Amino acid sequence: MATQPVPVVTAFDWVPDFAKGLVRDLRVRWAFEEIGAPYATEKFGAANPRPDGYANWQPFEQVPAFRDGELEIFESGAILLYLAEKHAALLPKEEARRWRAISWLFAGLNSVEPSCTRYFAYAVFNAEKDWADGAKEAVVPLVRQKLKRVSDALGDGEWLAGEFSVADIMMVTVLNSLKETGFVDEFPLLAAYHKRATARPAYQRALAAQLADFDGPPPPGRG
Amino acid sequence: MATQPVPVVTAFDWVPDFAKGLVRDLRVRWAFEEIGAPYATEKFGAANPRPDGYANWQPFEQVPAFRDGELEIFESGAILLYLAEKHAALLPKEEARRWRAISWLFAGLNSVEPSCTRYFAYAVFNAEKDWADGAKEAVVPLVRQKLKRVSDALGDGEWLAGEFSVADIMMVTVLNSLKETGFVDEFPLLAAYHKRATARPAYQRALAAQLADFDGPPPPGRG
Repeated sequence: MATQPVPVVTAFDWVPDFAKGLVRDLRVRWAFEEIGAPYATEKFGAANPRPDGYANWQPFEQVPAFRDGELEIFESGAILLYLAEKHAALLPKEEARRWRAISWLFAGLNSVEPSCTRYFAYAVFNAEKDWADGAKEAVVPLVRQKLKRVSDALGDGEWLAGEFSVADIMMVTVLNSLKETGFVDEFPLLAAYHKRATARPAYQRALAAQLADFDGPPPPGRG
Repeated sequence: MATQPVPVVTAFDWVPDFAKGLVRDLRVRWAFEEIGAPYATEKFGAANPRPDGYANWQPFEQVPAFRDGELEIFESGAILLYLAEKHAALLPKEEARRWRAISWLFAGLNSVEPSCTRYFAYAVFNAEKDWADGAKEAVVPLVRQKLKRVSDALGDGEWLAGEFSVADIMMVTVLNSLKETGFVDEFPLLAAYHKRATARPAYQRALAAQLADFDGPPPPGRG
């Protein structure tokens, strides 16, 4: 009896502490947990190089890349969309709501995340530079504006497209990147949304699985 | 005889010179021109306010938002995906290529554009700040790295997914934001790709239509 191969997601086996829970394979793991479908990870990390030819699979050599049989996909947004289509799950059936969810999937990646990433870049990666404080302070109003927009759109609704969808997986994991800033808590409806989402058992299982996979050796000279 | 309403795209009737050709409704216009389907614009600008309730349509009050009959979509990436599905155009039919195109659609928006936007933000919007040069120089290696990745993936191929698709509409309009920097020209295959794409008659028509629509009054105190 031929068995269907289990889809594969790439992941890291080591990251610095600040990145734990933030690597984007979490989005894909979360979707699999919500759907209740199995997946396998292909891991590499600081001391274990990317597999040969990884750039053909993931042109930016980032995580996650995804393989389902012969089919290869990269970008967490594309992988979420594929899983939603394949399993007829995590996207509303009704057309207007379906496209609202897809709109928000893109909005998480392009209208919200870049400002958060900029803040993170200046607060963490370039923190010692003499220009970092200026750049960081300049992006704060932008981060707050984006969060306010998401909060206003959400209102007291439970999920971005009326029912839980890939849009929420995306937005909540984007908001995770602000976890140590307190910005999300400035918007009570948004903070409640984030809390509601991350309390889902599927999220908890996905996060635990990512954290458990950080079992590789640190880079030379660390750890 | 009932006629189908023409889909509507929101656009600006005035922008400062540096933004001409860069507003993202260009992506949607270009897709319509490639498909050969009609569209209408709903315009507002510096002196003409957004219509009441625009945030319900486009939560960030940006351009473009899209309406097809009763269906409302925001985010240029989502609108491109919708048009490709509706018209069975601008996405390869073969599954692996189709998902390669969708992966690149997301990559344009999330792996390439944010670095370009950061460069643009410091070169244009915050240029007078004493921290802007430092922040700008810090993002230059990132911009170059992203462009190199796209160029390497493209190789001497004509289009990102083998045939012209929404991924190329996205990537080429992202590259447009670097037009005055010379970065794209550092990568000959990428520069040739950009030139090949922007020479398409559909692109030329879309650009001309956007520019012609900038016929509104400047904001108070300008122009």
